Formats: sequence, C-alpha cells, structure tokens
Amino acid sequence: MSTLGSRQLEGRTLGIVGLGLIGASLAAALRARHVSVTICGYDQSRESSARALELGYVDQVADSPQTLCKTCDLVVLAVPVLSTESVLRALAPALSDGGTVVTDVGSVKCVVDKAAHAVFGELPSWLVPGHPIAGSEFSGVNAANPALYKNHQVILTPAEDTEPGALDLVTSLWQAVGASVEVMSVSRHDEVLAATSHLPHLLAFSLVDSLAQESEKYEIFHYAAGGFRDFTRIAASDPTMWHDIFLSNDQATLDVLDRYMTHLQTVRDALATGDGDTLFDVFTRAKKARDHFSRVLDERQSSTT
Amino acid sequence: MSTLGSRQLEGRTLGIVGLGLIGASLAAALRARHVSVTICGYDQSRESSARALELGYVDQVADSPQTLCKTCDLVVLAVPVLSTESVLRALAPALSDGGTVVTDVGSVKCVVDKAAHAVFGELPSWLVPGHPIAGSEFSGVNAANPALYKNHQVILTPAEDTEPGALDLVTSLWQAVGASVEVMSVSRHDEVLAATSHLPHLLAFSLVDSLAQESEKYEIFHYAAGGFRDFTRIAASDPTMWHDIFLSNDQATLDVLDRYMTHLQTVRDALATGDGDTLFDVFTRAKKARDHFSRVLDERQSSTT
Repeated sequence: MSTLGSRQLEGRTLGIVGLGLIGASLAAALRARHVSVTICGYDQSRESSARALELGYVDQVADSPQTLCKTCDLVVLAVPVLSTESVLRALAPALSDGGTVVTDVGSVKCVVDKAAHAVFGELPSWLVPGHPIAGSEFSGVNAANPALYKNHQVILTPAEDTEPGALDLVTSLWQAVGASVEVMSVSRHDEVLAATSHLPHLLAFSLVDSLAQESEKYEIFHYAAGGFRDFTRIAASDPTMWHDIFLSNDQATLDVLDRYMTHLQTVRDALATGDGDTLFDVFTRAKKARDHFSRVLDERQSSTT
Repeated sequence: MSTLGSRQLEGRTLGIVGLGLIGASLAAALRARHVSVTICGYDQSRESSARALELGYVDQVADSPQTLCKTCDLVVLAVPVLSTESVLRALAPALSDGGTVVTDVGSVKCVVDKAAHAVFGELPSWLVPGHPIAGSEFSGVNAANPALYKNHQVILTPAEDTEPGALDLVTSLWQAVGASVEVMSVSRHDEVLAATSHLPHLLAFSLVDSLAQESEKYEIFHYAAGGFRDFTRIAASDPTMWHDIFLSNDQATLDVLDRYMTHLQTVRDALATGDGDTLFDVFTRAKKARDHFSRVLDERQSSTT
C-alpha cells in the first residue's frame, strides 16, 4: 500500500458526485483537516448542492456530472449502488481519455465491476472501486460528519491492471480523512459485507417490521429500552439505499442468511425442548466473540491517525 | 398508581439480595439521590459485598439473606431468575409474619409467580413482582450505574389481593430513582418482554455465534463497523442470566420467534426472487416504526423526573 498520505492528493481538484451523507462527509472531513484540495460537488438535488456550498464543504458546484468531470483529477461517485451504471454511462465521454481517476463508495463491489463492463467492456485501469466501511442511520448533506471516516476502514477492490498511480491517489484520499485502506477481491469484499453489514440490516428491518405489524399503534415499542434501541438502530436506515444493496448483493447475502437461519433453527429447537446446555454454549461462544470484537474496536479507536 | 414518590420510602430499611449490576445500581442510585434509607446488602460473593460497602452503596452487609430480611421493611431480590424459588424458600421463615414487603427484578414474571406458589402455595400479598426495564451488557457490582433507572420504566405485576401499601412502597422505591412505574398482568409482561428484549438477544447471540463459527480467528469481525457494533452489543450479555431468562420465558419467546422466522422467510424469498418491491415495503415500514420508536425514546429522555 502507498504510504504517501495526503501528499499525493495536495493541489488536486476533487469532484464528488452525490452530496448525501457519504459524499458530503468526505468533503467535510477534507475541510476539517485542511487538506489543500479544490472540491467540486454535484448533486441532482439543487438544494443539496446549495447546502454543501453554504456549509463550505465544496468550493463550487457543477451543473452536471459531465462538467464536473472535465475539471477534476479525481472523481468520487457517491451515489446509490444501482445508479452506478447510469452515472458511468453519462460520464463515459468525459472520462474516455483516461486522465481522470474515478472511484466509488458503493457497499457492493460486484455491481461496480458489472456496471463498468456494461459501459466500457472492462474495468478501466483508472477506475478504482472502493467502499468506506462507515455510515449512519441518518442520511443527506445535513447529516454530514467530518469524523465519519476517522479510524474506519476503506476497502478497495482494484483489478490486476489497475494503474498503480490511480490506486495510490484513491488510497491517499481516504488516508487524508483518517481512514486505513485495505485491498481485497470483489468477491471477498461482498461476502464480508454480506455477513457484517447486509445481513444485520436485513434482520433488523425484518424484526422491526414483524413487531410493528403485530402491534396496535406501535404500542409494544413503548416498553422497549436500550438493548432494543441499539439492536434496531440500523432499521432506520434509508430504504432506497438498502433496496439497492440487497438487489446487488443478493447471492452473498442469501448464502450467509441461509446459514444464519439454520443456526437460528438450532437455537429455536433448543428453546422448544428446554435444552439449556445448547443455549448456554451458544451464548458463551457469542459473548467470547463479541468481547473480542469490542477489543478490536477499542484498539482501532485508540490508534492515532 | 401511587404518587407518593420517595416520601413513602424515607426512613425505611431496604435490603438488597444480590449486588450485581441491577442490585448495586439501585443502591448507587438511592445514594446519588440522597434518599434517606438505610441499605443492607447481601451477595453470595463476599468480594461483591465488600466492594458494595467500600463504594458506599450499602450501609451494611448481612451474613445471610435470612439475617438481612429480619431487619428490613422492604427487600429487593436481585438474583438470577431461576434462583428466585430457592431464595424465597430460604427466606420463607423470616418472611412468614408478612411484616416485610418483598419485590424482585426478574426479566420473566411467570417464574416468580410459579416460585411463590411452590414455596407459599400462593403469591403472598406482601410480594410484588417487578421488573426494571434497564440493563447493560456489563455485569457485576463494578458496573453499577446510579443513572441506570433514570427515565426508564419499571413494570410491576401484582395480583388482585396484593396489599395496596406493599404496591405503594415498591412504586415509591422505583420512582425515587427516577423510573416510572406501570402495572400489567404477568402474561402481558412476559409477551412484551419476549418481543422487545428476549427475541433481540436471541437473534444477536445467534448471529455472532453463527459468524464466529465460520470465521478463522474471528477474522470477519475485523471488517465490521458501527452498525454491527450496535446490533451485536447485546450478544456480550451474561450467558448464565440469559440461559435462565430463556428457560423461564420459553413459550412467549417461541411464539414471537416463530412469527419472526416466518417474516424472515418472506424477506428471504423476496431476496431470492429479486422482488425489490417487497423488500422496499418492508424496509419502509420498518423505518417508519423505528423512527416512531426514536421519538418515544427522545421524549422519555427529555422528561423530567
């Protein structure tokens, strides 16, 4: 991995297409850390663009993504996963000379690969698919958080013939906002995220909907407390975004969901037969793993950036 | 409900049997709010008793729960759910004159009813089953939190012939530490808690165990972030306590678990067939319900006590 940090990035013009939580937080983080880049933003909502300008996150807003691309060294696509193909198609003429490095932030990486093949017949060497593993149940430019990426991880899934300079530039962008960067294959990324992010969201959405349907005027939520609040926080996430993610990462999510449902059936059977030993073993193993995860998070939080 | 607040409680001697998170937090909260009660504690671990004394949570520690009972006006049993019967049996001789009011804090109320019937042949009129809906993934006297009950709810499940004075005293105890008190039937309590607490814990334990079993040295957790952290926090809870809760509230948990598994199967089928409309509808309903729950929590947090 490059260790150039923000040096690689300085003096560049950065374009951000999509000024939602992820795009606007990236701009806000660069500003908060005084990284000397010119930031040009575009959002299909003129209101969001104007707000990003007003908040000082971007130096200028473009009329179209095409205009934006023409002036930028590096473009970040921060749009819903299923919009990747149409955005790449719209940008193709502006990008065809290969002088602009492009990356994205989508939660599913096979879909970027597929979109690039549909538009360019290949994954162009200047396109570096990426995914910052950070988010919030809130969305939109007003939810932007300059600390969103600090001590978080960004996974990049370049191909073998990705330009090293393009990979370095994207790496330096994320390092400049306090993230650490890892490279892995598209399929490994999509499996890992299916397990650690997509499945939990599906379970939380399903639980809250299941309880809400049974409960007259949500009365049951009146008696819920902190554990339920934390467990279901992700069920407040944006339905459109998650619709896209699940349709894009359906196979990896189904695989891990099926294994989970088999596990849950075992736990259910233990409950039905009063098999306390099995329950105790599951809980003990889970606690051990979760305590390990807490330590990983604590170490990450305390690391300097 | 009584609105006597802490007046009812002042000058009394309170006994707490079990100085874990729940019992010690109650003592710590009474101390922090300068409620004038004498607090006598007992824990089967001498170390926990000594620590509670050292931290000033209790005024004195008893050698046995029987000794404790003799001197107290009100006794709180803060022991694991499945220990309720053996503790009541041990205390029965000391309680038989009915001069001491007893309550408990167990997460399952049918088991207290059953334990009382096994020991006394009835739910004695001086025994007020209760459950503060508050907790943490941490346990033990050192995790005690004087704010644990502030703006939280306590559900009491008295019988028709429970002494009004006993109900008032227990109500005033919880109000004195900032909680609000509600009365409901045992079966309603156990259903509500199965849905909002027991089921989420089961799902979280099961998810973490399922992923841990597939993952070499927990490698997968390395890529998890905030959403996963919140979703799985409750999987770090005490295995023994939750073993007891599930064996005690098996039927209500099974009922809501089965409804959840049916719902999850529908979501799984939608994912498998690329039925984005169904997914979007589920996510949208869930977000609406979860946003409602956020508002309920915000209102509760901002209420004065």
